Order: sequence, then structure tokens, then C-alpha cells
Amino acid sequence: MTLLTSNTRPADALLRERGAAVFPGPGGFYGHLSVGLNQLPPTYPQFYSRGEGARLWDVDGRSFVDAMCAWGPMVLGYAHPDVVAAQQAQIALGDTLNGPSALAVELAELLVDTVAHADWVMLAKNGNDATATAVRVARAATGRAKVLKASHAYHGANDAFTPLPVGVPAEERANIVSFEYNDLASVEAAVGAHDGDVAAIIVTPYQHDGFVDQELVDPAFAHGVRAIADRIGAALILDEVRSGFRLDLAGSWESLGVRPDLTAFSKAIANGAPLSAVAGVDALKEAAGSIYVTGSFWYSSAPIAAGIATLTTLRESDGPGVIRAAGDRLRSGLYAAAESAGVEVVQSGPVQMPFLRIVGDTQFAEASLFCATALDAGAFFHPWHNWFLSTAHTDGEVDALIAAAAAGFDAVANAR
Amino acid sequence: MTLLTSNTRPADALLRERGAAVFPGPGGFYGHLSVGLNQLPPTYPQFYSRGEGARLWDVDGRSFVDAMCAWGPMVLGYAHPDVVAAQQAQIALGDTLNGPSALAVELAELLVDTVAHADWVMLAKNGNDATATAVRVARAATGRAKVLKASHAYHGANDAFTPLPVGVPAEERANIVSFEYNDLASVEAAVGAHDGDVAAIIVTPYQHDGFVDQELVDPAFAHGVRAIADRIGAALILDEVRSGFRLDLAGSWESLGVRPDLTAFSKAIANGAPLSAVAGVDALKEAAGSIYVTGSFWYSSAPIAAGIATLTTLRESDGPGVIRAAGDRLRSGLYAAAESAGVEVVQSGPVQMPFLRIVGDTQFAEASLFCATALDAGAFFHPWHNWFLSTAHTDGEVDALIAAAAAGFDAVANAR
Repeated sequence: MTLLTSNTRPADALLRERGAAVFPGPGGFYGHLSVGLNQLPPTYPQFYSRGEGARLWDVDGRSFVDAMCAWGPMVLGYAHPDVVAAQQAQIALGDTLNGPSALAVELAELLVDTVAHADWVMLAKNGNDATATAVRVARAATGRAKVLKASHAYHGANDAFTPLPVGVPAEERANIVSFEYNDLASVEAAVGAHDGDVAAIIVTPYQHDGFVDQELVDPAFAHGVRAIADRIGAALILDEVRSGFRLDLAGSWESLGVRPDLTAFSKAIANGAPLSAVAGVDALKEAAGSIYVTGSFWYSSAPIAAGIATLTTLRESDGPGVIRAAGDRLRSGLYAAAESAGVEVVQSGPVQMPFLRIVGDTQFAEASLFCATALDAGAFFHPWHNWFLSTAHTDGEVDALIAAAAAGFDAVANAR
Repeated sequence: MTLLTSNTRPADALLRERGAAVFPGPGGFYGHLSVGLNQLPPTYPQFYSRGEGARLWDVDGRSFVDAMCAWGPMVLGYAHPDVVAAQQAQIALGDTLNGPSALAVELAELLVDTVAHADWVMLAKNGNDATATAVRVARAATGRAKVLKASHAYHGANDAFTPLPVGVPAEERANIVSFEYNDLASVEAAVGAHDGDVAAIIVTPYQHDGFVDQELVDPAFAHGVRAIADRIGAALILDEVRSGFRLDLAGSWESLGVRPDLTAFSKAIANGAPLSAVAGVDALKEAAGSIYVTGSFWYSSAPIAAGIATLTTLRESDGPGVIRAAGDRLRSGLYAAAESAGVEVVQSGPVQMPFLRIVGDTQFAEASLFCATALDAGAFFHPWHNWFLSTAHTDGEVDALIAAAAAGFDAVANAR
């Protein structure tokens, strides 16, 4: 195995240097793509030149089968022809106009028809626009202030929710109250501590915090938070920004028989075009109409056209089912490859959004070696964040991921 | 003059009905495009089918010379060929990838080269992302909480800034302190009331509140807030979301010799593609790198490609100068047309972003009649919000606006 050095990736190295001059943040970039926070192996690219299907190219011409899907948005694969065509056509007609085009209504109707609990929607740009708007609606409806969330759950990076609250005064977070995921007693304790002032409980469909095994929701927990929200007259907000349209088009708790009052969507809703949405029940429509949230590009038609093409394709092709089959193949293939190398691993979470942990690798050093080796073998995995699969992950692409992972497991075994 | 009824605009009427079923908000839409809040004459369209240059088409096939530019974004006109081509090409290559493309660095370098005070930038989606991020940077740098803003100034619709704080608990706004625009004594009073705890002063380059005459900045006020920020060690944030890249590419206070520490840009930055940016000085780069803000689409390449094409075109063609010439022509033409009709009007603000008030029209009834008549005559004006011009407003387009406005003034005179 030859680890590529920056000398062999001159385009990426030069862009990092130029980027560090004009972007702030550890290593020159901010947020989830901060070089410092991302903690990717040094051979990983920071810059990409293109994507097609399940495959990515970096600026130095390397190509990989990608298991990150742009951190979630690419649910149909990169540059899906129908989505590209819809966007390109709409951009030529006009993207941002003095008001919406007919497409805004079409997408809203499609979402209402697709998402089981949805009676209305609001469109926005960021996932955080959707979670923050859902919170605003719940507060407007209840006249209450407190929002209950799982202690390590990510719901966006605004003042209230950012996981690293540098530059955030205490007041901005005073109304956020924590509970423990899958622990109903902790929810009851939080409710009790803020009796009569809980506007909303916001929760992800399953626990997908970074660095630790993913944890599926206990059905009793899902039913329990629904019952608590009903009992205290609070809104139940399902944060599907990460999971939406990948697990179940009708809603990720639909198979459990639990429906939220509000759902926040983004990421996969338009296969990578900037779009997010809040979907809500009729009982909250008046409250939603009473708040003032907006953005210059919230009704822009090109991302909406992408959203219509994406949801239509997912519906017609049973996208989540296709991705689940790819995920099942990947999960069994990875277990077999790891066992063959004598490396014990735990895979967790839905197979469409897998997380792999090497047992005993508490500092992610082996995960880093695994990832770096797999990258050299042509597959892009992330060492500490859940991965994402798409409908573009054919058997061949999944097998390529498994083969590259096998090289990674061998490297881990050899290094011990 | 024949006022069109909804019977003559069946496509718009049907979409409004369908929209009201699936969107919340007065009349079926939310935010600045809420039918209730927008308060446009009833003959105005809610839905648009396309735009080209300075011209818009509604879903019923009417076309107008537009003076709103999509509420600001269209600085080069709708569907500008170079911007469209750049976006379409990038969408085919890949929009949202696992990380940025080289274009992110190119745009950042272009912004740093264009905006006088800018040493670094952060890219985002909404104008409010940019104002909120600028506030976060200032708070991180100073360790302080309070943000001073002009009492009626719009800086976005998040919890802290929304002008209609329905659903916003008091804590979320506890750190926002008001002063009066162009009134240095009120700024000093706000500073004095929060001695030692002022993180930032956020201010628009001129006063562009809705419903009232726009007010240019008093140069002494601009220099004064700069001096106060320096004296107390707070950051001066210039909110150029609405004005950016239309008045002066280097910054709207550059001609005054006043440079902010941070600027928030959006709207016109990418000619309608969803993009915003914070630009900052070196002294705040470390603080900017210490905060955690991000979004799934903040590094997406298609809007960035649009931004590069937009800024390059504006630089090469002196966009603000071209728009200023169009604005001068419109302003003198409107004054002449109003005088000819015997209607006294006041035009205010920069000519690139004009506001017209009919003297004595305190309830905007005459503004509504003026706008409705002008629309029938082929021009789109807004009754209570400032308008925007673009480089696509040729002499012919401006003269068409003036001719339609003349019909509007005549209608106002006749109705008296």
C-alpha cells in the first residue's frame, strides 16, 4: 500500500493553501468541512471536481466509489440525469422570480401526498431553517418556550442548536432542555422540570450521533414521546433532515405507527439542490401562518424543480427499497470481509445509512487506517460519521466498496 | 383602464387556490410573499412562469418590465446567459459533493479582491445565515452578548431579528438593543446602557425600511459608528444583504471612507442562485474559525459558479455604474411624469434601489392604484417596498417603466 502524499496530489495541496488564505477555520475551512473537525486521513481530498452516479472525482483525477453521498443529499446518485435536466431547464426559464412558479405548489402537493402526516409544507434552504421553523411554529401554537431535545442530537448549527456554542450567549440556549434518546423517563423528567412550558419535543427517527454506534429507536420510545406530547399539548417534531426520503418516503416512523406533528426535511429532498421543508398537520397550519420566517431564495424554482424530479423518481422506483437492498448487500459483505481479515467490527443503524466501528478502536486510529487504505483501493468511507447509500449504488458499486473495505481490514490486521 | 379580474387570470387563480391548501400563511403563502403581508393590488400575479432580462412573465401569459428584480437578486437581469451557462455546466458536473470544488476558493478570492475590507469569507445560503454568522463571529471575538441594531431595520427573520416575533420567547431577543438610524446619540445611549457588553453594531448602508422614505446615511453617522465600535472594541457589521453589489462592488460605504469589520452579503451575489457570504477582516479570522456554523449546501458548486459569473460580469462591465445610469434616467423620468400628471411624489434612496411615495397617500391607496394601473400598462412596481434595478434595464426598458408609471400617475390624478 502506498499512501499518497500531497506531492502526488498537487491540485488539492494548492487549493488547500489558497483556501486557508481566504476561508477561516481549522485548516482553512469551516463547519462540517473544516479540515480540523472533519478529521479525515491526510490522503483524503478536500476538493472535488465532479460526481456521477455513485462515483466521485477529486481535483487530482482520482476517482472513488463514494459511501458519503455528499453527507446525505445524493439519494439518486450524483448528477442524476432527470434531476439535472429539470434544474437546467428551470434555470433557463428563471430561478428566483418576484414570486413562486407553479412548481412550488406542485412540490408542496407532492410532499403532502407522500409524507403521511403532512397537510401543508413550508419550503426553505437549510436543514436548520426547517428545524428552527418547526420550533417557531410549535412555540406560536402553544405560547410556550421550552424545546426538549436528545442531549447529543444534532438539529442544526444556529444559536439554539449548534453543538459547539462558541460565540453564543447563554440566553440563546436557555430554552433548550436535554433528555436521553430512547429513555422515556428522562423525557418525563424534562417535562416535569418545565411543567406547562414545553412547546415541543424534537427528535431524530433514530440516534445518529457521530463517533458512536447508531441506535435504532425503541418503538416504545417513539410511541411514548408521541403520548407525552399529546398529554402535555406540545408538538412532536421529527428531525428527518438526515434520514428523510432514504428510509421511508412516508416518514421514518410510519412503520411504527407513530406520526409527528411537524417534520423537518432537507439534504436528500432535491438530490443535492439547496432545499429544505417543514411539513405539518392541519392543527398547526394557523400557527405556521402566524409566524414570520422567509428568505430571498425560499421560493426559487430550480431547486424546487430538482425536488419534484427527485421525489417523483424515488416514488416511482421505490428508492428507499432499492437503497435498503444495496445496504443489506454492503452490510453482509463488510461483515464477511472483516471476519476474513480477523477484524471484529460492529455495524449499526439502518443499512441505508450505515456506521461501522472497529471493536477496540477507541481513538479511531484503526478507522483512519481502514479509510485511508480503502481510499487507495477506490472507495470513500468516513471514519467517524455515518455513511449514506443511494439508488446509484448498484451491486457492482457495492461490491467495489466491499473489495476496498477488505483491503482496509487487511491493513488493520497487518498493523496490529 | 380595465382592471383584470381573476376570471381573466385563471392560471393564477387556480394556483392560489391550490397553494392555499398546501401552504400556511395569510392567503396561502408565508414570509415576504404572503398574500396578506405583501399587500399587492389584487390584479398582481402571485405566480410567475419565466423571466428574461428586465422582463417577467406571469402564469397567465402577461409580461411586464420588472422593477423588483426578484426582491433584489437579479442584478444582471433574469436568466443572464453567462450565469445560466455557468450554473448549468456545474450542475452537470456536480453541485453538492463530499466537499468544495475549486470554485469555492475562486469565489472567495474574487470576493476578497473585490470587497475593500474583506480578508476572508464564509459562504452560506440565506442572507440571514450571513447576518447571524457575522453576529456569532463578533460575539466569539469579544466574549460579549449585546448586538445593537437600528430599531426598524430588517436583518433577517431568525429568532433574534424577525420583525414579527410571533413564536419567539423573550430570551431569544434579550441581547438585541435598538438605536435610531442616523442618530449617533442613540447609539451612544445604547452603548452606555450595556457598558462593556456590546459585541457588535449591525447597520445597513442606508435606511431602507418598508413603507417610509428611504434615508441615505449621514456620513458623520457612518464615521461615528465606526469610531464607537473602535472605541468600545465591538465589531461593526455592515448588512449589505439588500444593497450589496448594486451600489459599489467594493462596499457601499467605501466612498465615505468607512470600512466595516464584517459584511453580510446575499441576494445579488449570484444573480438569483441561493448564496450568501460573510466577509471579514483579518483581526476576526481566528474568531470566525472558532465558531461552528454550517449547512449541507453551503459549499455547493452551482450557486458558487453563478456567483463567480455574476461578480466577474459586474466587475468587467461596471455593473453598479450601469445600474446607476438607469436609475438616474428612471428617477428624472418619474419626476417628470408625476409633475405632468399633477401628482406630487418623493423619490428616495439610491437611484439603483428607488422608493417612490405619493405625497399625501398615507394609507398607500394611491400607491396601489398607481401600481395596478402601471401593471396594466406593462410595468411591475411595488407599492410599499423599495424597488431594484439591474444592468438589464436598458434605456428602452426604463422608458417603458416611465411610460407605464405615467399612466399610473394619470389614474391617481383622475381618481382625486
